[in-house]
Amino acid sequence: MAMFEMRAIGSVSSPYTETAQIPKGCGAAHQAEGVLELLPEFEQGLKDIEGFSHLFVIWVFHQAQGYALLGQPPTDDRPHGVFATRSPYRPSPIGLTVVELLRREGPRLYVRGVDMLDGTPILDIKPYLSSVPPEKLRRGWLAEAEERKRRSQP
Amino acid sequence: MAMFEMRAIGSVSSPYTETAQIPKGCGAAHQAEGVLELLPEFEQGLKDIEGFSHLFVIWVFHQAQGYALLGQPPTDDRPHGVFATRSPYRPSPIGLTVVELLRREGPRLYVRGVDMLDGTPILDIKPYLSSVPPEKLRRGWLAEAEERKRRSQP
Repeated sequence: MAMFEMRAIGSVSSPYTETAQIPKGCGAAHQAEGVLELLPEFEQGLKDIEGFSHLFVIWVFHQAQGYALLGQPPTDDRPHGVFATRSPYRPSPIGLTVVELLRREGPRLYVRGVDMLDGTPILDIKPYLSSVPPEKLRRGWLAEAEERKRRSQP
Repeated sequence: MAMFEMRAIGSVSSPYTETAQIPKGCGAAHQAEGVLELLPEFEQGLKDIEGFSHLFVIWVFHQAQGYALLGQPPTDDRPHGVFATRSPYRPSPIGLTVVELLRREGPRLYVRGVDMLDGTPILDIKPYLSSVPPEKLRRGWLAEAEERKRRSQP
């Protein structure tokens, strides 16, 4: 089994100190503001990042212990494979969030859309360059779960 | 410095055996087909993934040695911070690709849009759930470099 060692480049300042506070499930709006705080030695790597409106943040589910290949997400009443969900209990406990970049102050990126815990280690930041056209996107079991929920409401 | 050990869940079968073969730069079209081959022990984690049209693949730049905080991408004639580019020479050498899922055969996902080398280790796969609306997306130095290139052409 090949293992790879990854390095934290900084951490997230977030309003969420417990996972229960993070909005989950169908239509959860991630509007929370937070700060991506880079270690000073990596600040130079942010040059010109201000020009991008959105960023990918790749981070560690640092409080998740172990993994489960099947799990029942908060958005559904049946289990799905871990790679078809955003479960924290993954073989490689990596999280991925798209945030909107509000402004930069030195090694700090002020962003909107955080869904990580306060203190979450950041592994990488990349510019968000293009989107899949909405008409080409299929959302699998999540669309079905939303539809079931919609129909069950009076 | 906090380090985190991540696990390969499988590898990419790609038509590219050398980095020079991979289309790069402005408007590079990633239409190459490839296969995400999971290790048999992780196959159960793919349950219900067939319902999604697009996937995030998180992988390792396994042939990149070291990192550079500033670098000049093939798309521009000036240097930018590594976190504002897709350079392989990153503190955590993690790659991120959005692929279109064509079909699944057991532990193998046939996909379109690979831009990784053959044999690239895969750390994680996640469903692609939503897009940033095109009118809200700003593409920073890349848009500027494209504009300069367009203007310099007769």
